[in-house]
Amino acid sequence: MSDLHWKTGICKIKPNEVRLRGYRVDELMGQISFGQVVYLALKGDLPSENIGKMIDAVLVSSIDHGATPPSALTAMTIASTGAPLNAAIAGGILAINKLHGGAIEDCMGALLQVDDKIRARQISIPVAVNELVTEYKEVGRRISGFGHRIHTEDPRTIKLFQLADSLKIGSHFIAIAKEIETELAAQRGKRLPINVDGAIAAVLCELELSPALANAFFMIARLPGLVAHVHEEQTRQRPMRAIHPENHEYDGPADRSL
Amino acid sequence: MSDLHWKTGICKIKPNEVRLRGYRVDELMGQISFGQVVYLALKGDLPSENIGKMIDAVLVSSIDHGATPPSALTAMTIASTGAPLNAAIAGGILAINKLHGGAIEDCMGALLQVDDKIRARQISIPVAVNELVTEYKEVGRRISGFGHRIHTEDPRTIKLFQLADSLKIGSHFIAIAKEIETELAAQRGKRLPINVDGAIAAVLCELELSPALANAFFMIARLPGLVAHVHEEQTRQRPMRAIHPENHEYDGPADRSL
Amino acid sequence: MSDLHWKTGICKIKPNEVRLRGYRVDELMGQISFGQVVYLALKGDLPSENIGKMIDAVLVSSIDHGATPPSALTAMTIASTGAPLNAAIAGGILAINKLHGGAIEDCMGALLQVDDKIRARQISIPVAVNELVTEYKEVGRRISGFGHRIHTEDPRTIKLFQLADSLKIGSHFIAIAKEIETELAAQRGKRLPINVDGAIAAVLCELELSPALANAFFMIARLPGLVAHVHEEQTRQRPMRAIHPENHEYDGPADRSL
Amino acid sequence: MSDLHWKTGICKIKPNEVRLRGYRVDELMGQISFGQVVYLALKGDLPSENIGKMIDAVLVSSIDHGATPPSALTAMTIASTGAPLNAAIAGGILAINKLHGGAIEDCMGALLQVDDKIRARQISIPVAVNELVTEYKEVGRRISGFGHRIHTEDPRTIKLFQLADSLKIGSHFIAIAKEIETELAAQRGKRLPINVDGAIAAVLCELELSPALANAFFMIARLPGLVAHVHEEQTRQRPMRAIHPENHEYDGPADRSL
Repeated sequence: MSDLHWKTGICKIKPNEVRLRGYRVDELMGQISFGQVVYLALKGDLPSENIGKMIDAVLVSSIDHGATPPSALTAMTIASTGAPLNAAIAGGILAINKLHGGAIEDCMGALLQVDDKIRARQISIPVAVNELVTEYKEVGRRISGFGHRIHTEDPRTIKLFQLADSLKIGSHFIAIAKEIETELAAQRGKRLPINVDGAIAAVLCELELSPALANAFFMIARLPGLVAHVHEEQTRQRPMRAIHPENHEYDGPADRSL
Repeated sequence: MSDLHWKTGICKIKPNEVRLRGYRVDELMGQISFGQVVYLALKGDLPSENIGKMIDAVLVSSIDHGATPPSALTAMTIASTGAPLNAAIAGGILAINKLHGGAIEDCMGALLQVDDKIRARQISIPVAVNELVTEYKEVGRRISGFGHRIHTEDPRTIKLFQLADSLKIGSHFIAIAKEIETELAAQRGKRLPINVDGAIAAVLCELELSPALANAFFMIARLPGLVAHVHEEQTRQRPMRAIHPENHEYDGPADRSL
Repeated sequence: MSDLHWKTGICKIKPNEVRLRGYRVDELMGQISFGQVVYLALKGDLPSENIGKMIDAVLVSSIDHGATPPSALTAMTIASTGAPLNAAIAGGILAINKLHGGAIEDCMGALLQVDDKIRARQISIPVAVNELVTEYKEVGRRISGFGHRIHTEDPRTIKLFQLADSLKIGSHFIAIAKEIETELAAQRGKRLPINVDGAIAAVLCELELSPALANAFFMIARLPGLVAHVHEEQTRQRPMRAIHPENHEYDGPADRSL
Repeated sequence: MSDLHWKTGICKIKPNEVRLRGYRVDELMGQISFGQVVYLALKGDLPSENIGKMIDAVLVSSIDHGATPPSALTAMTIASTGAPLNAAIAGGILAINKLHGGAIEDCMGALLQVDDKIRARQISIPVAVNELVTEYKEVGRRISGFGHRIHTEDPRTIKLFQLADSLKIGSHFIAIAKEIETELAAQRGKRLPINVDGAIAAVLCELELSPALANAFFMIARLPGLVAHVHEEQTRQRPMRAIHPENHEYDGPADRSL
């Protein structure tokens, strides 16, 4: 039999000691936020408190978007058959793909392409963005992260960019994203505002996170929302009901503020 | 066709407005922690900052436990076949069941049974716990959340209980859990210390969360850990390798402190 | 490290030789039907040709039931997000639970309970069935496998029972199922005809298959149907469409006969 | 609300009538094989009896390949945590990807590319194959479906080709596959025999099935095998055991023949 010994750099477990990326988990508890530990788990080093706040805000921004997204409908449909919670959640996660949640990764790709142009040839953001938008247009490809079927001015985008500024996270990729919005409007004569996926993409680029992890942030953010929908389905709805994908109304708490 | 109109109390979506349980999501961003928003999504009301800190600590406590748990092995095995990230994560979540992660829910059930006894008959914690432990023993049933295959004194348990105290979360269910540990030692002549699942169970009982949501906390906590293992598999390991479930060593950052 | 050596009785693999339960797979190919090899895989021994025909008929009976079952809706919803085929199928399979597909297992349980009564006390089918139906009624429990939301006389049930007779599969559990139908009508004053799940349950009992495997037959049967729905979604429908769970019409080939 | 009416060409359901692609399912039961109904579901028309036999042989060929493939290990790992059968199976299906099962689709792509060359330019099989193998070599791409980590002369390949001949399924794509094997040996100086995935690819091309459905045949075939492994795990093994991916031995029925 071949030698199957292998190595991993994530966790070290000893009796009465659990370390994540070198830190004792019990030391991290109560000291660092969930956003910080997510970054630590994925990037390998502990981020500043501000980065943790930024990640928390990213996660809060995408915690739920109602009952119409396919991930919520999938999770509710599975739940209605009597499935355990984790099966319904796994189903919901299987619906997070290129066309639902995947815009973050694709948009990060576009932002990084612009950045590559800037670095390689020492050109300005507007010049690089003009090139990219033209290139995409020539091959008939959409730039992900711009435009939304419901929102024309996504309040979550505005807040993410405000926080990136006040928390001193960075402005380079946000400037690129805004320039793409401007250039798209110029070339297409139609406004396609940066949506929440595009805004998250810019923030994750500022944080030097890999596009391969983009979907992870959407999944981590959305999981509690999916749980809420599954729990509501299990406790409030008739089993095996036919779930209309649009014909529902909100009857939760009235509008309120912090 | 039947009328398929239905109601949901989780999210309200209007153009340029996304509300979770009545609150504008963009207002929540930057103001409340991920732990608070998880509670808001699942319970329907915004918790205190302390409760948010407690939930963050619960989530941090279970973020990962190395490469041997079946959820990590499942996610890595699927990833090794060339699967996209979400498929590997969905697989990992399917491995979170009665015997892995499920202890939280079962332990909450036991703690709530003791509490029922106390309330119904105005008896003391030790009397109620003695009854419960005896009842379980008679039917040959284990009480979940006690004992661990590796840890004899789980540092995460100690920290969760310290935080529950300093954050003024409550002490009733923690006292019950500790009494069960004492009673198990007395009846069995063998120490079965409260493990991290048992400690989380006590904390979630203090927070009046439903046992039906216990597994959700484990899934939310563990998801970033699963992503870390999948990403490591994808970027560091040979595709289609045979993954030994134990024969690995840690080669990540050296021990360090905050 | 502990010795992890383990044993399995399913397949033996050597260079240029693949054996299932002792038989060379290449010898089985072309000689035995898929129904026979399913039985061989699950029970460990090769069944008669007639049993193979019966299993093929069971699988054909449940290959699809249109686009309204939750497994089909789940698979289509996931497919609409750009998921690969296997993710959509996995989602569909997660929707096969107690309330969808699960009736076979529950009905087998009821049929075996009646059989236990008969064997233990040498009583007749009608006496045993009367007891069981009364017992279920007293605790307010439905007997699975009887009644259908669409069909009053399921043609698949009729054919399964005809085939069980002509293929000499057995008649004992079918007689029990028919007696339950009679008794339910007598006690409730309302006809709840044996549905296809109930009929499959009776057939699987005749074949001495474990109720723990009941769901497997439904999943094996339905998988090609789920693939057909996913493929249709991928090739015919607009991505990310809202999928109405009922408001569709059939536009495939006209009615035809063999 | 938008009009969500949609159309589907797979099943027509009326009270007491279930039709698949126009045929009454109860008429199909007992008259056509599972292989035939799979083809009917996926292609829309009833195939000849010989095609049904060929598909049955394809399904039998891939029903299982022991406990080392990642789909089996995934399903067993999930099962060991106390998961229900369908969750373990869904997990196994999530492990059927590009590198496990996916070779059929990729090989079909290569065979169809050769066929395109032949049709477009009226060239011979050897000339077209020489071109393709050279093209793949130049870009450093493997042709899927050739070579096996265990088998040097896969008996399932031999049998599939024999059956394709005796059942008069076709010989064109099989000839292409064999020529690729010859050309690979010539160009690389090393024999990479057609494996079972390559042989299935050739057969599915003869049957004019879409490469997009290739993975479906692997999933349909392998599902009973996965069920067998899950059932064995549930009934024979200790829950939560560490599952060694290779260190097992076969202890099932001794070698036997039909």
